[in-house]
Amino acid sequence: MSKETFPHLEALRDEMRRVNVDAVIIPGTDPHQSEYICDHWKFRDWVSGFTGSNGTAVVTLDQAALWTDSRYFLQADIELADSGFVMMKENMGNDPTIHEWLRDNLEEDSVIAIDGRLYNAQEANLLERFCGENGFMLATEFYPADRIWTDRPARPSEPAFIHDVKYAGEEASDKIERLLNVLERNDATAMLVTALDDIAWLFNLRGNDIAFTPVAIAFAYISRSTKVIFIDENKVTDEVRQHFKACDIKVRDYDDVIHFLERVNEHEVVLIDPNRVSDTLANALQCAKVYFRSPITDLKCVKNDVQVEGFRHAMERDGAALVSLFRWIEQMAPTGTINEVDVWTKGQEFRAQQELYREDSFAMICGYKEHGAIVHYEATPESASTLHGEGILLVDSGAQYLDGTTDITRTITLGNPTPQEKHDFTLVLKGHLALQRAKFPVGTTGCQLDVLARLPLWQEAMTYGHGTGHGVGHFLGCHEGPQSIRTNLVDVKLAPGMILSNEPGLYKTGEYGIRTENLLLVTQAEQTEEFGDFLTFEPLTLFPYDTQLIDRAMLTPEEVAQINDYHRMVRERVTPLLGADDAAWLAAKTKEL
Amino acid sequence: MSKETFPHLEALRDEMRRVNVDAVIIPGTDPHQSEYICDHWKFRDWVSGFTGSNGTAVVTLDQAALWTDSRYFLQADIELADSGFVMMKENMGNDPTIHEWLRDNLEEDSVIAIDGRLYNAQEANLLERFCGENGFMLATEFYPADRIWTDRPARPSEPAFIHDVKYAGEEASDKIERLLNVLERNDATAMLVTALDDIAWLFNLRGNDIAFTPVAIAFAYISRSTKVIFIDENKVTDEVRQHFKACDIKVRDYDDVIHFLERVNEHEVVLIDPNRVSDTLANALQCAKVYFRSPITDLKCVKNDVQVEGFRHAMERDGAALVSLFRWIEQMAPTGTINEVDVWTKGQEFRAQQELYREDSFAMICGYKEHGAIVHYEATPESASTLHGEGILLVDSGAQYLDGTTDITRTITLGNPTPQEKHDFTLVLKGHLALQRAKFPVGTTGCQLDVLARLPLWQEAMTYGHGTGHGVGHFLGCHEGPQSIRTNLVDVKLAPGMILSNEPGLYKTGEYGIRTENLLLVTQAEQTEEFGDFLTFEPLTLFPYDTQLIDRAMLTPEEVAQINDYHRMVRERVTPLLGADDAAWLAAKTKEL
Repeated sequence: MSKETFPHLEALRDEMRRVNVDAVIIPGTDPHQSEYICDHWKFRDWVSGFTGSNGTAVVTLDQAALWTDSRYFLQADIELADSGFVMMKENMGNDPTIHEWLRDNLEEDSVIAIDGRLYNAQEANLLERFCGENGFMLATEFYPADRIWTDRPARPSEPAFIHDVKYAGEEASDKIERLLNVLERNDATAMLVTALDDIAWLFNLRGNDIAFTPVAIAFAYISRSTKVIFIDENKVTDEVRQHFKACDIKVRDYDDVIHFLERVNEHEVVLIDPNRVSDTLANALQCAKVYFRSPITDLKCVKNDVQVEGFRHAMERDGAALVSLFRWIEQMAPTGTINEVDVWTKGQEFRAQQELYREDSFAMICGYKEHGAIVHYEATPESASTLHGEGILLVDSGAQYLDGTTDITRTITLGNPTPQEKHDFTLVLKGHLALQRAKFPVGTTGCQLDVLARLPLWQEAMTYGHGTGHGVGHFLGCHEGPQSIRTNLVDVKLAPGMILSNEPGLYKTGEYGIRTENLLLVTQAEQTEEFGDFLTFEPLTLFPYDTQLIDRAMLTPEEVAQINDYHRMVRERVTPLLGADDAAWLAAKTKEL
Repeated sequence: MSKETFPHLEALRDEMRRVNVDAVIIPGTDPHQSEYICDHWKFRDWVSGFTGSNGTAVVTLDQAALWTDSRYFLQADIELADSGFVMMKENMGNDPTIHEWLRDNLEEDSVIAIDGRLYNAQEANLLERFCGENGFMLATEFYPADRIWTDRPARPSEPAFIHDVKYAGEEASDKIERLLNVLERNDATAMLVTALDDIAWLFNLRGNDIAFTPVAIAFAYISRSTKVIFIDENKVTDEVRQHFKACDIKVRDYDDVIHFLERVNEHEVVLIDPNRVSDTLANALQCAKVYFRSPITDLKCVKNDVQVEGFRHAMERDGAALVSLFRWIEQMAPTGTINEVDVWTKGQEFRAQQELYREDSFAMICGYKEHGAIVHYEATPESASTLHGEGILLVDSGAQYLDGTTDITRTITLGNPTPQEKHDFTLVLKGHLALQRAKFPVGTTGCQLDVLARLPLWQEAMTYGHGTGHGVGHFLGCHEGPQSIRTNLVDVKLAPGMILSNEPGLYKTGEYGIRTENLLLVTQAEQTEEFGDFLTFEPLTLFPYDTQLIDRAMLTPEEVAQINDYHRMVRERVTPLLGADDAAWLAAKTKEL
């Protein structure tokens, strides 16, 4: 190893030597614990070369390693070649954990350093305990990026904007009032809000700072007497300034938050979500704190009637765009002239023609044949397969509309489906349909329902390695908590107004991937005297399943009727938005089974 | 109120005044936190008159209340009439909790007293915190039963006996060795064992001290160097004494346990299950303690091959006894000469004729028509309905055989089933069958599978208020942890060798109750390269479902085949144990659908 070979890594080590640090841990997140982050905070990428969404770098004076999960093993293998870093596989049982590795590679009294602004309070706490138990010292104010990253991108300076109440369905001032009531019920007088989607929802504020998620980078502090947003001046347009004024929200500079927190009155009791608030900000508060999951998470996940109606309209337009896209794929694939990246580009193009479209809600996953079996595959010009008139194509995509966020996966055949392909597709579909038609008592959690989507696969000794359903934001994050449908025992009860994906899949390495995904709305079903109240799902997504991949003999009459009913709804609601050719195509695709 | 009216309650209050106690809480348990207890510890029953298995009495100098759950509302209403006690309904939202009630009825500095020998360490801890927060004082050494209960029954003096290794499948010394290894892995050097079924399993010891569960009253203390059982001298027969000697287990008097614990070497680290060890015993230990779920619970719940084979044989004999019983019911019911209690008596009689039978495993629930809708109904000569040649009969019963414990529910028609009865029965059966044929990956918990049994009911906005499945002991408790199949999110993974009940039901108040219950064994299914290993269930119980109650049109071909396969297995395995008439009856009952 030499400075010439790994200049960024060696610059970091020089900085470590300068301040007597023996090891540094660099997570891949930002001060808001965001899932996607902007370039300004991609210091881990700069040091290691690894660009995946989940990865933690650890550097000592003579070693360097990067921990990531199975989605990124292939990518890390390539990106970490000649980087000075070795890859460590998380949760596979062979490689050491970060803690084990530090224990093995450091001597007693070593100093482990982190940037406490990027570490959430809970993780910092665990790390501190680990250091205490192993005779290490923890330094939480090590900021190498500020000194050695000379060509560091600036923080985004895009203007923020207001999400009109005609889409949001509730005034920011009413949301703040509801939040204050929740805080009081939890014996708190104030809350420090750091999650960008929490801030966006609370203030009906949106931005363009992070790809796929329309949020503005900011912090907020809310109490009865003091409502402050910390945000860069250049984001605050006149419209935004007037909105804040009308809501009695003071605007201060983004970097002022720490000084503000240090001066919070000692009589306040500030609610902090230990998974979302950074160690540095949590420690800046000198007053009493209560640690709790962000109550905004629980308020935000239940959509109001205006949002729900918006979702329904957005789905109609999204369905219309997808009709154009899939008809185009069907026409072009046999010509051998388009590839996976073209599908992504074309999908954006068709969606952009729809009203209220702003951007895609995530990077399209378009996987042809064996690429479909790579769950988080993202086609690049280098990797993209050319499509042909046969084989399985998996397309997982979505968009941000002002009135709703979409996320849909469809798997189609490009010609001559094999019996095996049809069998596998139908198994996945049976699980998807079972979950979608489920009725369940009030009080049921997502993890209780997860099996419904998996059972047809389990019965044939197959399964999939991801969750069945995630929550979805409203013109916000495509992944949103706290509700989910997973095997993990998450104790969040499903409630009317929650939206969840329903996306079972099956992945056969080297062959193909199958996934079928709709978004579902939790709605009221029967109310009974003797057995209590029941809930059910309304499918929001509007696009047909590929009937060419269905093995009709595997379906029960109930399943056939369910598909036909769904296809009739799709046809009735999407056709009015289509031209004649698209309408004819959709009519053919939604013919009765 | 006067002493003449409530002499026991007033004697208790005299005792409270004597030692300056303002309130006393009397749980319905014993020093071993047993589900069923012997008369010696039924002080709550003596004071209040209430005899249900779940109930806590609270007495102040001028008030008295008893908390119980919905199973016992009817019974408590009757038993508490003219007792000086009012009933408080648990978990119904209207009545105060015990803590709320104490807060409302006591002044500051009041003394709340308990018998710490009957309170587990965890609950005592919670109570102590409650007292601290509300300005009450807690006294944990109030033993009124020892002073005022003049006609108190003695502790049972039944002899204990050894459960032969030909049934148990593992020598006690090997079990102790396995336990010591687990303790060491958990950084403990010793364990205090107080749960009677834990002691029974660990030592291959059984007894006759508690109805329905063949355990002997004892405590145990296990470390590498010291293995002691604390048990009344009169239980220790020559056989038992020799067995203990061979295993290097010292025998000391039951009442010596507290003195022994007070003298445990301070270098020991004793594992304590805070839900099973009493506050008094936990506090007697002066050394270090680790609080953990009893590791014996986890060892005991996985049955070895000998136990499993024993279960299979026991089920054949149990099935044979049930053929005789149900044939007798069918013959007698139309005559109008037998009632619910007669069925219980006759069931015991038929089972007692089977080899290795020792006793029933719980009080038979035999509910005709509307009695079947009372989930924990126990017929008495006063309440018993006379059976006739029509209507629904629910029979939940089981037995303790030396080679296995049974627990089965069958619901039958005594004639002319209505379409509604058949519809309801078939819904319950569909859930029962779905759970029974489930295949699932290693790592799956019972709460993930629970929905399979409920879904057919949920889809029609109905459900049942009890769990779907409980663990079952081997010639031990009919209810055994830690595994279960319930809506509660219990993180215990199902593993081969575990046994669970599968008992969905439907209860229509004033009309009838339906429940269908088999015991299931968790077994290995496929092992796959790509998707990991899968498990499934083997139904152990061997008795036909009443096909007269099946609405054939509601079943899928898969369900019909599953029933036919099961009935064929029942016929093949039970018929060899039957006389000609019973065999003919079973052949008719297991005819192909």
